[in-house]
Amino acid sequence: MKRSSLNKDRSEAREFQTPTSGIFFKVRKVLYDQTSSFQRIEIVANREFGHVLFLDGLLQTTEKDEFYYHEMLVHPALASHPNPRKVLIIGGGDGGALREVLKHPVERAWMVEIDGLVIDACREHFGWLEPSLASGRAELVIGDGNVFIRETKEKFDVILVDSSDPVGPSTVLHEKDFYRKLRTRLRPGGIIATQAGSLVLHQDQHAAKSRFLKRLFKHPRFYLSPVPTYPVGMWVYTFLSDAIDPTIGRPLRIPEGLKYFNPDVHRAAFALPNFLKAKLG
Amino acid sequence: MKRSSLNKDRSEAREFQTPTSGIFFKVRKVLYDQTSSFQRIEIVANREFGHVLFLDGLLQTTEKDEFYYHEMLVHPALASHPNPRKVLIIGGGDGGALREVLKHPVERAWMVEIDGLVIDACREHFGWLEPSLASGRAELVIGDGNVFIRETKEKFDVILVDSSDPVGPSTVLHEKDFYRKLRTRLRPGGIIATQAGSLVLHQDQHAAKSRFLKRLFKHPRFYLSPVPTYPVGMWVYTFLSDAIDPTIGRPLRIPEGLKYFNPDVHRAAFALPNFLKAKLG
Repeated sequence: MKRSSLNKDRSEAREFQTPTSGIFFKVRKVLYDQTSSFQRIEIVANREFGHVLFLDGLLQTTEKDEFYYHEMLVHPALASHPNPRKVLIIGGGDGGALREVLKHPVERAWMVEIDGLVIDACREHFGWLEPSLASGRAELVIGDGNVFIRETKEKFDVILVDSSDPVGPSTVLHEKDFYRKLRTRLRPGGIIATQAGSLVLHQDQHAAKSRFLKRLFKHPRFYLSPVPTYPVGMWVYTFLSDAIDPTIGRPLRIPEGLKYFNPDVHRAAFALPNFLKAKLG
Repeated sequence: MKRSSLNKDRSEAREFQTPTSGIFFKVRKVLYDQTSSFQRIEIVANREFGHVLFLDGLLQTTEKDEFYYHEMLVHPALASHPNPRKVLIIGGGDGGALREVLKHPVERAWMVEIDGLVIDACREHFGWLEPSLASGRAELVIGDGNVFIRETKEKFDVILVDSSDPVGPSTVLHEKDFYRKLRTRLRPGGIIATQAGSLVLHQDQHAAKSRFLKRLFKHPRFYLSPVPTYPVGMWVYTFLSDAIDPTIGRPLRIPEGLKYFNPDVHRAAFALPNFLKAKLG
């Protein structure tokens, strides 16, 4: 897929979401534009959405609407676990997922981000990471999540995969082998939650993933929630567990001050439209 | 708000969704571009979304994703009514809502569209209207919905308002006086469903509407469902009735062959995120 972000005179950032359509943002200021060993990292300021992060021309998060994504990646899993003491986040370098995780009574949260430059850029231009790192409950690892889960001796109550989409460099984080390894890193009663891509654009990937997740987990659930600035609107997540079926019962714990998540939203997220149910089989 | 659609060389259609951001579509072909007494009507062909209709530079519908909107405007109300014999649609000139209405055992459906040129353009470039008009159960009225409901002697089991957004020429269709009149056109047990605008962009309008709808109807519900190509993703609808609370019980009737709507989706649509609940009071 053709992607782009800053145009030539740097007055507009564009993301091709399909080969022939996408979104644009007028740029008030380019705040950051560096290329790491892994990707091009751009942060621009837009009047409506505030600071906006692009990786390789794909929008990752905006100040205005980040809570939709981060609350809905984190709380369905964390609020469903009776005692989430140890949590692993793979990816999530902007720090939004970590911030939400620490709203629960977690003893220790590891965040494994492959690109140290993303951390640097986000520490400077988004305010989410600093308070979490100062909490004494978070551990930052700069490294490959796929290697980390093979080498760590640690096991986790909840594992969150806050990766980029099931195309390009993150493809490995959407494949069966990765999920099989993740499963071995779960403590009894554990839960995995992942972002799985766009409802509209990644349907074939959801179908393929559904086939192997059904063989790996007793409760392999897909759920949906909107992210206004993500490709064509509706986002797909997975909730994976052998112990907990999130469609039964209610969340056990709701942190104060959330903007999006509540018990009704939790239940509603697992209701899938007919065309997706047909795809998932 | 600054809007636009075709750019100068007609190779791209753009919609400003906020003053500094929006969506773009590469144009394979401009199929229609006329200005009526009411608005500019453009239909373009895009490789991903098929035929795309813009009114005054605002995207109304696309062939690829129209079912999200039309199923979710129509079926929550129609499937909740035990015997929807007479149905009124205000607006909806593209014909998608009418097509969905006629999937229920409706005796007669009136569609009141203010702009005859929209009808002509959509009959030519979208295939939805012709079979409905041939069914013998639909009556097309070219006229102002606001006038129609004052003058008609008819009463309806379900009234659907498929208008444009709560800004510009359709503003009147989002105000208290209009809803008060609509209510007098309901038969006992009747239901009104309306599109209410964007979750992200029209929050102040939702708050204002919520205040007067609570005084007019016993069950004034807001519900949500995504429309991939609508401004920043999540769409707001209202369900208004003195007789039926859509959050209790299940839909009574599910037509065959729907792509989106099902009983779980119906229930889920009424789960609102915290920030919207706070706005609605």
